[in-house]
Amino acid sequence: MNLSYPLILASNSPRRKDLLSGAGFDFETHTVFVDEDFPDTLAATKIAEYLAKKKGKAYPEIFSSHIIITADTTVVLGDKVLNKPADHEEAFDMIRSLSGKKHEVITGVSITSPDKNISFSDVTTVHFCELTDEEINHYIRQFKPYDKAGAYGIQEWIGLIAITSLEGCYYNVMGLPIRRIYQILKEEFSVR
Amino acid sequence: MNLSYPLILASNSPRRKDLLSGAGFDFETHTVFVDEDFPDTLAATKIAEYLAKKKGKAYPEIFSSHIIITADTTVVLGDKVLNKPADHEEAFDMIRSLSGKKHEVITGVSITSPDKNISFSDVTTVHFCELTDEEINHYIRQFKPYDKAGAYGIQEWIGLIAITSLEGCYYNVMGLPIRRIYQILKEEFSVR
Repeated sequence: MNLSYPLILASNSPRRKDLLSGAGFDFETHTVFVDEDFPDTLAATKIAEYLAKKKGKAYPEIFSSHIIITADTTVVLGDKVLNKPADHEEAFDMIRSLSGKKHEVITGVSITSPDKNISFSDVTTVHFCELTDEEINHYIRQFKPYDKAGAYGIQEWIGLIAITSLEGCYYNVMGLPIRRIYQILKEEFSVR
Repeated sequence: MNLSYPLILASNSPRRKDLLSGAGFDFETHTVFVDEDFPDTLAATKIAEYLAKKKGKAYPEIFSSHIIITADTTVVLGDKVLNKPADHEEAFDMIRSLSGKKHEVITGVSITSPDKNISFSDVTTVHFCELTDEEINHYIRQFKPYDKAGAYGIQEWIGLIAITSLEGCYYNVMGLPIRRIYQILKEEFSVR
């Protein structure tokens, strides 16, 4: 695929890098600071795309003549957003609240070039089985999920032993709905 | 988890080994030859469990005093089973037939110890987007999916760019419904 401009992934997440690279793209990664505030009135399901767009506006000033991918992933349980846990106790409470229930993982994506911007969000529903306290504590101690929204990584031990079913894109839960990004880059940002 | 006997995974699949190991189990792998014939009259959706059970009967003669996991994964499109492709052309035809449609990946599992046997099968529905001939040929050339039922690996490039959605267990598509196996080993084959 010949993209119309060089590609930048505006994220330091190693999982996002692996996915974009696994889909066959060459790219650089750059991150600039963008505050992650959003209006109080925004519905939980709209936050990820709002933040992806907000980040998407910050980069073109610095990296003109590029295609820039920004993304934000949120974990939503009912109408509550689960962010990154501050400590063991918060991680425990988050995973305990997910146990035996289904939740939504929403990744907002914004793709910006000098010519256009396309933004969307992708939703995956994840069902957790009931977990024992021992299992939750074991996971937190071994995997220290403090950099992960909702306090878990689907590709880690807990993702193997706790998820009864998911509906949607697996890779979206890892942080990037890579099939849709591939499709959009192919159809909207490449030179035929 | 303290299992009641040492664990054997009766498979050479590196993906199955990674999953069982990722779930935290210590085990050895051993394989013995078992013919994979099955009755003509068997429904496509029943073949995987039939073969897992058949394999499950072959091992205890050799490895008594063990817990033995046998598994078989089939890819079912409508009422047709897609096996491992023999060559590029067969792989192309298989992936072409999956393009733009949904199919089922069924892994049959049999867990056998000196005390008991538990067998089940797990179904995941996978939706493929429309693929171009160029994309299919690129995948087959780069990834040579001749060891894979249905001619694709979900964790490879094609899994990233072609799957619009799945319902069920992602890891089941890789060859092992690891959550259910973990649960059954915990509840039925461990010492409290």
